[in-house]
Amino acid sequence: MTTQWPDSYADRMERVQSSIIREILKMMAVPGIISFAGGLPAPEFFPKERIAAATQRILMGEQGTAALQYGITEGFIPLRELIVERMSRRGIELAVENVVITSGAQQALDTVGKLLVTPGDRILVENPTYLGAIQAWNLYGADWVTIETDEQGMVPDALEAAIKAGGAKLIYLVPNFQNPTGITLTGERRQQIVELANRYQVPIVEDDAYGDLRYEGEDIDPLLAYDARVTNGLKDGILHDGNVLYMGTFSKSLCPGVRIGWVAGPSSVIRRFVQAKQSADLHTSTFTQMVVHETSRDGWIDEHVQMLRSVYQERRDLMMSLMEEKFPAGTSWTQPEGGLFLWATLPEQINATELLNSAVEQLVAYVPGSPFFPNGGGHNTLRMNFSNATPEQIRVGIDRLAAVFAEALNPVATD
Amino acid sequence: MTTQWPDSYADRMERVQSSIIREILKMMAVPGIISFAGGLPAPEFFPKERIAAATQRILMGEQGTAALQYGITEGFIPLRELIVERMSRRGIELAVENVVITSGAQQALDTVGKLLVTPGDRILVENPTYLGAIQAWNLYGADWVTIETDEQGMVPDALEAAIKAGGAKLIYLVPNFQNPTGITLTGERRQQIVELANRYQVPIVEDDAYGDLRYEGEDIDPLLAYDARVTNGLKDGILHDGNVLYMGTFSKSLCPGVRIGWVAGPSSVIRRFVQAKQSADLHTSTFTQMVVHETSRDGWIDEHVQMLRSVYQERRDLMMSLMEEKFPAGTSWTQPEGGLFLWATLPEQINATELLNSAVEQLVAYVPGSPFFPNGGGHNTLRMNFSNATPEQIRVGIDRLAAVFAEALNPVATD
Repeated sequence: MTTQWPDSYADRMERVQSSIIREILKMMAVPGIISFAGGLPAPEFFPKERIAAATQRILMGEQGTAALQYGITEGFIPLRELIVERMSRRGIELAVENVVITSGAQQALDTVGKLLVTPGDRILVENPTYLGAIQAWNLYGADWVTIETDEQGMVPDALEAAIKAGGAKLIYLVPNFQNPTGITLTGERRQQIVELANRYQVPIVEDDAYGDLRYEGEDIDPLLAYDARVTNGLKDGILHDGNVLYMGTFSKSLCPGVRIGWVAGPSSVIRRFVQAKQSADLHTSTFTQMVVHETSRDGWIDEHVQMLRSVYQERRDLMMSLMEEKFPAGTSWTQPEGGLFLWATLPEQINATELLNSAVEQLVAYVPGSPFFPNGGGHNTLRMNFSNATPEQIRVGIDRLAAVFAEALNPVATD
Repeated sequence: MTTQWPDSYADRMERVQSSIIREILKMMAVPGIISFAGGLPAPEFFPKERIAAATQRILMGEQGTAALQYGITEGFIPLRELIVERMSRRGIELAVENVVITSGAQQALDTVGKLLVTPGDRILVENPTYLGAIQAWNLYGADWVTIETDEQGMVPDALEAAIKAGGAKLIYLVPNFQNPTGITLTGERRQQIVELANRYQVPIVEDDAYGDLRYEGEDIDPLLAYDARVTNGLKDGILHDGNVLYMGTFSKSLCPGVRIGWVAGPSSVIRRFVQAKQSADLHTSTFTQMVVHETSRDGWIDEHVQMLRSVYQERRDLMMSLMEEKFPAGTSWTQPEGGLFLWATLPEQINATELLNSAVEQLVAYVPGSPFFPNGGGHNTLRMNFSNATPEQIRVGIDRLAAVFAEALNPVATD
């Protein structure tokens, strides 16, 4: 009898499953299906030629050998400088010592879990919250505390009540165009939440995967910037102190396949984060870090993001106007000012998970909302992505989905 | 008062520090220093032109968009097929379901720790053992049990005694040209250890980072192959069952900067491993996976490895003959048949950690041996890398090191 592996697995694996989204994405390999399920950027705008040219320049230039050799865990310095420069335009002046490169934002979540989360720790989150965080921190034993969330984001009074009631290990937020709801936390609430974090000494993990992609209204400073003003953590151009760890990614502004994200925060915390990352993968690929830097430099990434904003805005507007026109009465949805997602709520009697089968039969797909509620709920909700499908696919897909919803609400007798 | 971060860190972080090797590598930024410290491949043989051409073909070809998009956690199928094909020539027939791509071999170690290791678990290892494993699994609470190791590798009788004495969560081995000692586990002992693992139902983690790089003697099958024969785990071309998880990497055969490794093992264990990896980084970069595949395909990687073997063999032979000629009496070292390292033992009265300062003053560096002994010991040992320095650097570096050792043994009176 060989090793009984299931008996060998660590207890922490008990709550680890494959992401339902990734399982759904596998199911979607049906010819002709139109998927609003994934969180995928529009692939037709990946800058293939530019990335190919950047790769040539790197490999054939002075950096060619370094691109293929081991590198430092903190990450390629010019890429960290580029991130510092871009973040300065988002309202926070940092130094490279405040930034570490990660293998995508998911690794940032995993490493924060390693660094901070122990079994039973109370993690205060928006309700619903991002599935990738649930998946990452379940492994470290997170105890999820869902905080009331409305169209302005997490409600500060509810947050304070939860901290008072049972303490908090950390607060996790997706403040801009949240995944899954598309909701944005207002500036006023950012100020209030940062003050609460400071008063109660609770770290905030700010997941800003979508902040670049605003289609209307004004950019709002990240919580990291609000926090630096409250705590005066910034001295001599370095953020020494504070309550916020900020996570960013190139997956949405450039492309996901390179797996380049970053974490920014107080330098002492970044040093400890680097040690945890070092044991996880030594460092993120020097090759992809240099390719991302060479592709993005000299303001190109900003122009590219401008272009993506107009493309995604058009798709968002189209999807929302078609939903307005075609979705049955009793259905409602959020009005995201940016990002990749909107969030729909069906009448109470509809179970969005069960209805997905009918939708897939009609060759259209979404993600049911319930997995985003760590403590249950949301059976009649669903997430829809508007960045990946083309306008023509959006037209056809919304037609199909409207028919599925209408049929579910008013089944036509068939026999 | 802001968050007191050190109070927030998880207990598991208490045993996590920066790798001493990476700290030493930072110290080494002294002009003119010759370093035998790192585990770096020879950068002058990185196939920059070929990688550049492969990247062009991928990005401008049918796969260009897929290379930049999200991918499946298991990894790019053609790359897994290539690994299956190469491993079949090492004595084990697998299916792609038995292989998952990782972000370098360090991620394989980290993920195995996540999957299997809980606080207090007894991890049975060679003595000394690989520092990256110590670093990765300390975080999960490993209790290190060092097993007597001689010039033929881990001693099976000592292994069995340790299992009987206190049980074992897993056995970790670097069977080929071990890091740090360069020692190879004999075929006979592989058979014995695999039988012990099967009898006592203890998983084996086989870290084969260096198996490609043999300079003399015959290749020995991996423990994974020995185990498949003992357990009959292979059915219908898929490995269903067994005791061994095998880890490989392209860091030594191609280049480290792409961070591409893999794990091979029973399909049910690989599925669980994939779930743990998914929460860690979703998937390894599709871009680098495709670049590695396109670069390596059609037998090119095998020719490249042949070339590296002859380059590194020459460097090993040179270093060993110079040591024979110049090192003072009372110094001994291993005779590695492959890999990147040899292991020297100085007379008892010498502390290799303290002596490193003198070596660096003389512009030559090595890694002291003691960090590789998880339970202490080895104060008079050190690891030397022979792959990274050029023959001329090896000549100068060994001269310098011989002088440092001679001075330590017979200090010349200076007043």
